[in-house]
Amino acid sequence: MEKVEVGFLGLGIMGKAMAMNLLRHGFKVTVWNRTVSKCDELVEHGASIGESPAAVIKKCKYTIGMLSDPAAALSVVFDKNGVLEAVSSGKGYIDMSTVDADTSSNISEAITAKGGFFIEAPVSGSKKPAEDGQLIILAAGEKALYEEAIPLFDVLGKKSFFLGQVGNGAKMKLVVNMIMGSMMNAFSEGLVLADKSGLSQNTLLDVLDLGGMANPMFRMKGPAMIQSSYSPQFPLKHQQKDMRLALALGDETAVSMPVAAAANEAFKKARSMGLGDLDFSAVFETVKHLKG
Amino acid sequence: MEKVEVGFLGLGIMGKAMAMNLLRHGFKVTVWNRTVSKCDELVEHGASIGESPAAVIKKCKYTIGMLSDPAAALSVVFDKNGVLEAVSSGKGYIDMSTVDADTSSNISEAITAKGGFFIEAPVSGSKKPAEDGQLIILAAGEKALYEEAIPLFDVLGKKSFFLGQVGNGAKMKLVVNMIMGSMMNAFSEGLVLADKSGLSQNTLLDVLDLGGMANPMFRMKGPAMIQSSYSPQFPLKHQQKDMRLALALGDETAVSMPVAAAANEAFKKARSMGLGDLDFSAVFETVKHLKG
Amino acid sequence: MEKVEVGFLGLGIMGKAMAMNLLRHGFKVTVWNRTVSKCDELVEHGASIGESPAAVIKKCKYTIGMLSDPAAALSVVFDKNGVLEAVSSGKGYIDMSTVDADTSSNISEAITAKGGFFIEAPVSGSKKPAEDGQLIILAAGEKALYEEAIPLFDVLGKKSFFLGQVGNGAKMKLVVNMIMGSMMNAFSEGLVLADKSGLSQNTLLDVLDLGGMANPMFRMKGPAMIQSSYSPQFPLKHQQKDMRLALALGDETAVSMPVAAAANEAFKKARSMGLGDLDFSAVFETVKHLKG
Amino acid sequence: MEKVEVGFLGLGIMGKAMAMNLLRHGFKVTVWNRTVSKCDELVEHGASIGESPAAVIKKCKYTIGMLSDPAAALSVVFDKNGVLEAVSSGKGYIDMSTVDADTSSNISEAITAKGGFFIEAPVSGSKKPAEDGQLIILAAGEKALYEEAIPLFDVLGKKSFFLGQVGNGAKMKLVVNMIMGSMMNAFSEGLVLADKSGLSQNTLLDVLDLGGMANPMFRMKGPAMIQSSYSPQFPLKHQQKDMRLALALGDETAVSMPVAAAANEAFKKARSMGLGDLDFSAVFETVKHLKG
Repeated sequence: MEKVEVGFLGLGIMGKAMAMNLLRHGFKVTVWNRTVSKCDELVEHGASIGESPAAVIKKCKYTIGMLSDPAAALSVVFDKNGVLEAVSSGKGYIDMSTVDADTSSNISEAITAKGGFFIEAPVSGSKKPAEDGQLIILAAGEKALYEEAIPLFDVLGKKSFFLGQVGNGAKMKLVVNMIMGSMMNAFSEGLVLADKSGLSQNTLLDVLDLGGMANPMFRMKGPAMIQSSYSPQFPLKHQQKDMRLALALGDETAVSMPVAAAANEAFKKARSMGLGDLDFSAVFETVKHLKG
Repeated sequence: MEKVEVGFLGLGIMGKAMAMNLLRHGFKVTVWNRTVSKCDELVEHGASIGESPAAVIKKCKYTIGMLSDPAAALSVVFDKNGVLEAVSSGKGYIDMSTVDADTSSNISEAITAKGGFFIEAPVSGSKKPAEDGQLIILAAGEKALYEEAIPLFDVLGKKSFFLGQVGNGAKMKLVVNMIMGSMMNAFSEGLVLADKSGLSQNTLLDVLDLGGMANPMFRMKGPAMIQSSYSPQFPLKHQQKDMRLALALGDETAVSMPVAAAANEAFKKARSMGLGDLDFSAVFETVKHLKG
Repeated sequence: MEKVEVGFLGLGIMGKAMAMNLLRHGFKVTVWNRTVSKCDELVEHGASIGESPAAVIKKCKYTIGMLSDPAAALSVVFDKNGVLEAVSSGKGYIDMSTVDADTSSNISEAITAKGGFFIEAPVSGSKKPAEDGQLIILAAGEKALYEEAIPLFDVLGKKSFFLGQVGNGAKMKLVVNMIMGSMMNAFSEGLVLADKSGLSQNTLLDVLDLGGMANPMFRMKGPAMIQSSYSPQFPLKHQQKDMRLALALGDETAVSMPVAAAANEAFKKARSMGLGDLDFSAVFETVKHLKG
Repeated sequence: MEKVEVGFLGLGIMGKAMAMNLLRHGFKVTVWNRTVSKCDELVEHGASIGESPAAVIKKCKYTIGMLSDPAAALSVVFDKNGVLEAVSSGKGYIDMSTVDADTSSNISEAITAKGGFFIEAPVSGSKKPAEDGQLIILAAGEKALYEEAIPLFDVLGKKSFFLGQVGNGAKMKLVVNMIMGSMMNAFSEGLVLADKSGLSQNTLLDVLDLGGMANPMFRMKGPAMIQSSYSPQFPLKHQQKDMRLALALGDETAVSMPVAAAANEAFKKARSMGLGDLDFSAVFETVKHLKG
């Protein structure tokens, strides 16, 4: 796949950074976005424009999708002039959007039925890692396509995993985000307890960062939280949705997860307080002393 | 305090490693231990032996205590031939045992009443960091004594904190251990959910270790947990006790901590399953599918 | 509606008892059941048989459905020879099955589009209250139909409520069952705590039954639970499903419900222990001391 | 014990009602209260006054204590001119205060050591049942004294239980109050969920009161809660203290109680909102949508 022509559908914050990365590393990229103006910067850096998802698929052997949500991911495939119209034997479609396992399966079946190859490949990491090619890629589906896509993944991420059948990428992401949500609650409770017990929250951050639990998330978010600053890196409502979906996965598989369930209710409390659009670290507010 | 004579009471796993460290760095050390034979190795490396805690205090300007629990920490101070009998104006006693705030306050008052200086200085870190001088030291009490003790702490730890009044060291340790206990539960729930959802637990460990939640505890304990191996580094019953005490601190200060409370109940469930003497990561067993 | 012809679809445990009740009170009843043999006893008591749901609707102005689950409730309406084929202006369909709000809305829209009237009317109460005409009826939908159906509800239940728009009956039932599930967990925890604290569980039952929390559920289920006897009145897996749906309702409406969430995880733990088909009081087993 | 002379120490709301009851039923009663004026009404109804607890004990074969808390219960026994000074062989002391098991044991040992007999006999029920002789009496300690006291208990309560060794009365009360606290949370969550889902809270009360969970507490407190009215029958801070003590009992006995733990955290949240002096039903406020 050395420097082959690559299609790219969806130029939001993440998609744009990823497509730029591919251009920088010498790939020829044909882009499409619902709002065409978002393509300008990429064209300046050498990208071509496709008129529609179908046109991109027709032109390129491999096409990446990076859409904002399941509805957009479905629309780009199934709508008129969508991916499905142009997919044919040998074409590869790599959906890197974050969607649920069912959405992924629907897309997979439709593409496979027309002779195409499909992998889902949701990523862990936000804007900065996308720009730096430091994403973690959780791929699942057609193994042969995954192997052919490795040169792309080497540019986009610091590490890619092949997880088996379609749906496993989505599930892995839910498990990771569930652990993240519970950890954020544990951290918030500790920060408030420190404060109310007469201890310095900044010192707690220092102590934590020297010990066995030291991690980038506490290090990066802690100081802002102490300032009640929750500029959204990952919106709380999305974190709560992922916890709900992870708990639903635990419901299917009869896994009792009392700590995640308690954390989920705290995120719901935060939503009821109107904090859903802030960063998920705003769950910290639910632990503080409130007025009725 | 350059290379002054230092007393050391209590040569358990931690105490022995710490006293050895002091010797290696050129301090003259006079040791005492209830079971005298435990002093042998230190004597070979140049330590003197004191006949009793009182004898050690009489000989040394600064004495460190590193006892196994509150009862032992109290006994070494208040019993016949104990610390208190020999404490006088200008003597400094540094209790590095992990005890509750009340025990610490009792010792502090008794020593201060006789003109001595006192700090509590519990540590974060287990055997290996103790040997390597990589402990985290959470000191509180008489500030002047803390400052005089810095050359000792520089040898024993990678970092020391002065946290204010007596009791704050104990409280900080509870807050840290509470966060640790909740994180261990979050981690355990994620590992079981991955497994029951058809994902590889080892891959989950790899994914976690590349992302924002990467931390030494997951990295070190995860592989053993997957093997159901829980060799005790920190016994589960002690972890549960610390969570209980942290929740009690939250009760005093009216801090509602639903995630820590759920984690505490999981540790209690583990105790009811007979896992109290294993490593606290054995709480993992409570998340697995059980038989009634 | 005095003694008019009434259709009845679905003769499971509940449906049979209810149809029999109607016959006993002088209504003419035309019944249909997928397995025809289940109609025999009712025919002996004077019921007519309809060949299909459509045939019953055609014959009767009012028809009651009492199906086992959402799939059956949908099938009886939308399948060939189903309710929908025969519904016409003026016909009334009363679905007393326990289904979710979405299922109910789908049925409502289809029937209304053809000029029929619809109410959902799920019931609270199991076999015994059904036989005795002591159900609690939670009706919602077309108010006029509700009022015409009151003579039927007077026979079937001790009380009927009209709750407004379609879906409200289902929601009320979820709220009630959620409270029930949390109460059952509270009760189970108390029983185990009593036992492990050296108190008699039977005495606890007596004390509870004399005080402000005395209720039929504790009174009826307590003695069996102490014997580890869980003959299914309401299967645990259905109770857990209702708690999941109630929590999902709380998710939509941003209501944080930490106690219900903890109770739900206990029911999931019970499912993971293989207790899903027993009575929901078997959640008691999760509180006992388990073996790993 | 037919109409014997009975001592009564402590004339708070409960104590006064109970002593009055004894007078009404023909017992000769000698009362003592720290604030003497509280004795007036009883004297009008025929009571005698004792100068001190010791004087009451000296005069009466059987003496009841009904003090407000553990400190008062200890003080009346151990202080100068207290119960202990006058206790001698054959005297019976019946402590009906609500105290913890340790306090009870201390009193029991002291009285027994002087040849006296002791039972603890905390009650379930508040002012109204005390006036009506409808308390539930949870007695434990010296069985012979319990049996001799039955004529008194028959007047004071609708039912008395003998629960074995000293401490069991206190424990039984904790178990009952723990169940009560979890139920109150379940009820509160249901009420808020109903409201946010577009259902009438009053209708929910009606539905609950007709079904298997119908109980006096929901019936009496529900209507006030809907009005956000929390006139203290049992203060929230006391309910939370009892849940804490019940959870501590579960800690000793390794009983994991996730629902009670979640309920306890909700009560703590209520305390942090400044609701500790209101009725414990004010935990309802924590479930509502709050402002940060």
